[in-house]
Amino acid sequence: MNIVDIIVKKKEKKELTRSELEFAFNGYLDGVVKDYQMSSLLMAICLNGMSDLETFNLVDIFIKSGDVLDLKNIPGIKVDKHSTGGIGDKITLIIGPIVSSCGVVVPKMSGRGLGITGGTIDKLESIKGFRVSLTEEEFLNQIKDIGFAVTSQTKNLCPLDKVIYALRDVTGTTDSIPLIASSIMSKKIAGGADKIFIDIKCGNGAMMKDMASALKLKDIMERIGKYYHKETICEISDMNIPLGSNIGNALEVIEAMEVLKGKTGALRDLSVKISKEMVAIAKNISLSDAEKEVLEVLDSKRAYQKFLEFVKYQGGDINSLKVSQYTDEIKASRNGIVKTINALNIGRLSCFLGAGRVSKEDMIDYSVGIVLNKLVGEKVEIGDTLFTLYKKDDNKIDINIDDYYEIK
Amino acid sequence: MNIVDIIVKKKEKKELTRSELEFAFNGYLDGVVKDYQMSSLLMAICLNGMSDLETFNLVDIFIKSGDVLDLKNIPGIKVDKHSTGGIGDKITLIIGPIVSSCGVVVPKMSGRGLGITGGTIDKLESIKGFRVSLTEEEFLNQIKDIGFAVTSQTKNLCPLDKVIYALRDVTGTTDSIPLIASSIMSKKIAGGADKIFIDIKCGNGAMMKDMASALKLKDIMERIGKYYHKETICEISDMNIPLGSNIGNALEVIEAMEVLKGKTGALRDLSVKISKEMVAIAKNISLSDAEKEVLEVLDSKRAYQKFLEFVKYQGGDINSLKVSQYTDEIKASRNGIVKTINALNIGRLSCFLGAGRVSKEDMIDYSVGIVLNKLVGEKVEIGDTLFTLYKKDDNKIDINIDDYYEIK
Repeated sequence: MNIVDIIVKKKEKKELTRSELEFAFNGYLDGVVKDYQMSSLLMAICLNGMSDLETFNLVDIFIKSGDVLDLKNIPGIKVDKHSTGGIGDKITLIIGPIVSSCGVVVPKMSGRGLGITGGTIDKLESIKGFRVSLTEEEFLNQIKDIGFAVTSQTKNLCPLDKVIYALRDVTGTTDSIPLIASSIMSKKIAGGADKIFIDIKCGNGAMMKDMASALKLKDIMERIGKYYHKETICEISDMNIPLGSNIGNALEVIEAMEVLKGKTGALRDLSVKISKEMVAIAKNISLSDAEKEVLEVLDSKRAYQKFLEFVKYQGGDINSLKVSQYTDEIKASRNGIVKTINALNIGRLSCFLGAGRVSKEDMIDYSVGIVLNKLVGEKVEIGDTLFTLYKKDDNKIDINIDDYYEIK
Repeated sequence: MNIVDIIVKKKEKKELTRSELEFAFNGYLDGVVKDYQMSSLLMAICLNGMSDLETFNLVDIFIKSGDVLDLKNIPGIKVDKHSTGGIGDKITLIIGPIVSSCGVVVPKMSGRGLGITGGTIDKLESIKGFRVSLTEEEFLNQIKDIGFAVTSQTKNLCPLDKVIYALRDVTGTTDSIPLIASSIMSKKIAGGADKIFIDIKCGNGAMMKDMASALKLKDIMERIGKYYHKETICEISDMNIPLGSNIGNALEVIEAMEVLKGKTGALRDLSVKISKEMVAIAKNISLSDAEKEVLEVLDSKRAYQKFLEFVKYQGGDINSLKVSQYTDEIKASRNGIVKTINALNIGRLSCFLGAGRVSKEDMIDYSVGIVLNKLVGEKVEIGDTLFTLYKKDDNKIDINIDDYYEIK
């Protein structure tokens, strides 16, 4: 077998066999296949796609490249949740406490953010003392004790996916539905949960720009789950506008707490929707019964208490949360109704303020970000604050409001 | 500007600007763009193509990456000739002497072979003492004196093409018409000739497998020539069967001499055809007038004398040519007519015997190869020798005749 022949085969749109995929991908991990050969193959996959069988095989190759977490000794049904990434997406911090308060175990392995989409691990690191790297034992003990834990990585899960992901990031090959699906699903399956819930973000601020792509991703991820006997439910949610009001690390933790304490709006609505789906598949009950449980733990503040317990368990001091003192209020210059808020541009602005990484080595400033003071559908008058920047320092930032808010 | 954005733009089938192409390709030569990024871009180009403007710009970037040979001080019209590579293609060794005997200067820069297609430089190295690396001064003096010279490289022509070509070879990205055209034409233009003749090989033993691809390559190469004010003529010739009788290095030099001494057949016919085209464009005369000149230098053996002069000028001892003493005659096992001889398989067999390189570091055995004793259209009887193997040693080689000869 020869890597050039394998690349040419995919270039000619032919299906690769299991052993060809193993030769190429395991060979890359072993250093036999060079990065310039893998990137050429990845681009051919981006442009020519992969069959279902190729995708199932690639998931398996990713899984077998590392360890698999064994959650059998944890009582109850374990449901993992993943979001494909969006602007202001702090859902994990809300649904984790809710769903675990309903008695469902949520063993969550999470990543750092890159580019405009934040990562849950970064958000949690804005809490002083919060330990994001748990050992396997600590992780298992915590989910046994309180039903919810977030860690960056325990065992060596899918090391092959890690190197492929890093290569895709610098070679313009991120945008491929079978590659995205294999990357996410292999990590979720290796994570050991019984059932998997995926929140697919769709819109200008997400990887999936249009509904057709989001539906394709949903379809292949659900079929991968079925193939591996892991019930998988994918829901598509809007990412043309940011989720909730706050974007940035500490700011997002604060908003998650506000929702857990009773704040209403789109963020709470989506959190309830996802939580009830997770509770329903975990307990095998109807959505309306699941909703009752979810609203009960939310309204009784038991979910909020769970959040505090979770932060304390991982060593965090919730009172340490700090937002920047340097703020700019961006005011409306016309009257009207907020038609839309551009998620992509808000994400870029937040990144520019220092809340995200442009390259992997960048340092994050946890205290910066954006608060949207006016949301879609709200009425604004000249002089009203539309949004507030939380900045690194006192330097002035030029803002063209029309890049962010459409008011009519 | 950012290489990932450029890769994604080509992935999305958008046209790259001049400065984007410069950023990517010059950046690669400078080491700013990594090989894994360039290979990803090359695969996107293979699959999504390049516009005419992109191709013209890439040719220019290749040319400007190095020196350009100045032939202005050489009297007469200079016509360069290139073949896209085939099995048994020793045409350069025949047409060089013919065309230069007609008073047209043929300044030929040539390459080594890789894979099943041989290179003129390798063939000439089968002659003891033959110097394939001339200095610029030596090259210019020789074409001024005798009108014909072959060298591997003089100046630093198109260094960027060299590194891109090497990368394409190991990343499954050789098969792209705009990349093939840019690579060939940039070197020909930098070589400084006034006019360019390209022999496009088409068939199972060539890079262009079908007529449609060959015609596309012809079209874009002729348009590149026009863009650079270098009259360029491309002719398409068959490469489903090997060219002539001999395949291998010393064996091909011997056959070239046989044709120059009067041997008739398909090899002579194609040599006459190409020679008259080159003479006609160089002298701006009709093809029939050009043919008269060509046949005259051939029949009078002036072209043969020119060949001997050329070999001697570059230090070669023509009497040193040696073919292996280890031969196997492959005999027909049925009666019939030779319908076809598979060029691809003959090329592979010749490579296997040691006449070609599988990887760049392989050593060539100049004395090995294949002689086709029966050609297409000839009648064969059981026991007739179809072809003869010239081998490294006395080891037996298993041959399935049907892989090479179709007899019906």
